[in-house]
Amino acid sequence: MQFELTLEYIEQLKEAIDQKNDAFLKQQINDLYAIDIALILNRLDLDEAKHLYRLLDEDIAADVLLEMEEEKREDLLATFSTKEIAEQLDNMESDDAADVINELPEEIQEEVLAQIEDIDQASDIADLMNFEEGTAGSLMAKELVSVFAHETVSACIDEIRRQTDNVDVMYAVYVVDDNEKLIGMLSLKKLIISHPLAKVDEIYDGDVHYVKTSTTTEEVAEIMQKYDLVVLPVVDQLGRLVGRITIDDVVDVIREEAEKDIQMMSGISDDVDSNDKLWRLSRARIPWLLVGMCGGIIGSRIIGNYEEQIHVHPEMAFFIPLIGATGGNVGVQSSAIIVQGLANNTLINDKIAPKLFKELGVGLINGVICSGLILGYNLLISDSWKLAATVSCALFTVIICASFLGTFVPLTMNRFKINPALATGPFVTTLNDIIGITIYFLVGRMLYGVL
Amino acid sequence: MQFELTLEYIEQLKEAIDQKNDAFLKQQINDLYAIDIALILNRLDLDEAKHLYRLLDEDIAADVLLEMEEEKREDLLATFSTKEIAEQLDNMESDDAADVINELPEEIQEEVLAQIEDIDQASDIADLMNFEEGTAGSLMAKELVSVFAHETVSACIDEIRRQTDNVDVMYAVYVVDDNEKLIGMLSLKKLIISHPLAKVDEIYDGDVHYVKTSTTTEEVAEIMQKYDLVVLPVVDQLGRLVGRITIDDVVDVIREEAEKDIQMMSGISDDVDSNDKLWRLSRARIPWLLVGMCGGIIGSRIIGNYEEQIHVHPEMAFFIPLIGATGGNVGVQSSAIIVQGLANNTLINDKIAPKLFKELGVGLINGVICSGLILGYNLLISDSWKLAATVSCALFTVIICASFLGTFVPLTMNRFKINPALATGPFVTTLNDIIGITIYFLVGRMLYGVL
Repeated sequence: MQFELTLEYIEQLKEAIDQKNDAFLKQQINDLYAIDIALILNRLDLDEAKHLYRLLDEDIAADVLLEMEEEKREDLLATFSTKEIAEQLDNMESDDAADVINELPEEIQEEVLAQIEDIDQASDIADLMNFEEGTAGSLMAKELVSVFAHETVSACIDEIRRQTDNVDVMYAVYVVDDNEKLIGMLSLKKLIISHPLAKVDEIYDGDVHYVKTSTTTEEVAEIMQKYDLVVLPVVDQLGRLVGRITIDDVVDVIREEAEKDIQMMSGISDDVDSNDKLWRLSRARIPWLLVGMCGGIIGSRIIGNYEEQIHVHPEMAFFIPLIGATGGNVGVQSSAIIVQGLANNTLINDKIAPKLFKELGVGLINGVICSGLILGYNLLISDSWKLAATVSCALFTVIICASFLGTFVPLTMNRFKINPALATGPFVTTLNDIIGITIYFLVGRMLYGVL
Repeated sequence: MQFELTLEYIEQLKEAIDQKNDAFLKQQINDLYAIDIALILNRLDLDEAKHLYRLLDEDIAADVLLEMEEEKREDLLATFSTKEIAEQLDNMESDDAADVINELPEEIQEEVLAQIEDIDQASDIADLMNFEEGTAGSLMAKELVSVFAHETVSACIDEIRRQTDNVDVMYAVYVVDDNEKLIGMLSLKKLIISHPLAKVDEIYDGDVHYVKTSTTTEEVAEIMQKYDLVVLPVVDQLGRLVGRITIDDVVDVIREEAEKDIQMMSGISDDVDSNDKLWRLSRARIPWLLVGMCGGIIGSRIIGNYEEQIHVHPEMAFFIPLIGATGGNVGVQSSAIIVQGLANNTLINDKIAPKLFKELGVGLINGVICSGLILGYNLLISDSWKLAATVSCALFTVIICASFLGTFVPLTMNRFKINPALATGPFVTTLNDIIGITIYFLVGRMLYGVL
């Protein structure tokens, strides 16, 4: 049942497009879902994609467009007339249509909007275009079924019948008062099992979750996850029902959030994927590389201060990578645990001290194990017990420091409303590199001097 | 509307529990959702939690139990009699009840099962307990409404009425043939707007997504995301309808997957969170720290080979951290992009070469920028143009190598069915550290010798 996209299949389609074998192509794509056709289009050249797109049935074409990669969709739409774009938008839900129109060049947005035949749809899209990205308003769709509390069940069902063309998937109808303020909801199940002449205000559920248009998408995702919601109504500043957000949009938000965190942790500062253009990929990575290089330069200055010591004891230099890498690893481990706790709300914000102590405890255990092992190794392998003592003492101190920093930095960032995931990548590694080297050579000077 | 859990509030509740002020406590928790009460219980001592739990209304108690942290729930249930546990399980959906019973000590599982009053529920739970973790069978619930294709709409509605107590939230009814094989579905919306005497087989949708009980949860999550599904029916090996999976369970799977990836990337080898016990946190981190340390020791052996060179040119040691850190950062950036592409299925599996070339292209651009900048810095700051040339040449080579490895390692791991996220953490960093140092000193020996 699952469609598997293979290179061979793509090649076969490309050949058929080249030969204009439309009968074969139509037969191939006839049974596929919109997402599968979109995945194919993503892999074709623009001319090929254009050809295949023209062969699609009208009732699936708009959905295919929505499922395509943004860049590929923009390229494809650029070959359409404004009239043709308007036709596609007319077949979309209002929130998706608003997203697509926002991607178009500004100078043609108005023209496209003016050519949409369904006036209601055009006005809904225009409304939605005003909401800022990252808010509930930008995520919601206007299509919903609402009923007044004084109506009967059978009037509700008539209303659903009337509006059924607009709403693809429906889970509930919303109940509003005479001022269109949201006061509750009525599940379709309840509607089905209730008597046709029952009044809505006798059977509706007044305990309904909702958000405002200005609520952030992160908060929307959090609420829907926390309360296991499939759909969430959106109200304006006056409490009037203006739209609804469905779980599929929120699943995308959750996935994007997780991806953003992983990118931040990896030192990639822009939202890119492996199909993006070379210079975009390159530009997204340079900033954190430069931060890391600055750290490296600072490290070189610090080591430079100990030039004389290295000259006399070149073996000191051997363990620079060990110290740096272990400090970095410990720091990233600590901060990852903290960032995850913050993201899950399993940490209560105003309790930094116990977390710090716990991480220091973990650092203590791991520090003893690691520096013990390295002490054994060095005593076995080298004949300088001074070096062995220096490396182990430094390593232990570095692990404790890195545990502290890995905990403290993300908690502090979070308090100042900076995304703490930023702390779990090159930033913590670089910081711990510098601090680790400083500690190593300080300890070295002290021990070599004393021992 | 959103409930905010503060330390002050917890303290207030603890005090009330201490004073056995049950009237106050009941009034406090009366209006809260199950998840909010669970968050409170997670923060209380066992005795306090037990006291508060006993005050809950019967209709919410089971839900609260489900929303609690696993460890806290186990502790709480350990204070219950098997009879009391059975009562709670009777109020849960079958999939949740099976999860909870699987957490209990094996010796009491059978006893608890025997004490569940509703025989159907007990048998459903026993069925579900057999499915392996990580499969659709372990994720599904048995509660669903199915109808035969030859029935009428009004018979369907009667069936829904009959089963309504079992199914909390309902989105669709499933259509089966006379052998109970799944042949399609009927949305509640369609049911509502159809004529009561219409036959199911005239109006049902035969194009329905489904999975088998043995399908992996990852694949379930992928299918539900790809096709924007809220509920997915599960069939047995004979195609008979046996259960259904809802989106809220899958949202949890998606979140857990993302967390697992982040932990792997951070070098944490076990599924832990910041509230776990000290030794567990410590044990989860030691393996990758040791891998990193082994890398550090290998690094020290490599540098050891150049002891003489460092003795003559101690300034060579200054840039060890810069080379190591940049190599690590570049490698993690490359592998993060690849891992993400693999997770999103935006990469087609059998096309490694073009990805490698692209990453090498990015490496080339960033290598030129980074080594150019460091060349400028070194020429400005130091008077050794030999050192400047060595560092820049080495840095450039390291960046190219790290780009290559960061791409090649996860793609290869993926081909051998190893989770590629594993490659994006300490493993790639350590590998690049070692290779970076080797290159640096090799280039150093060559250039210092020649220049």
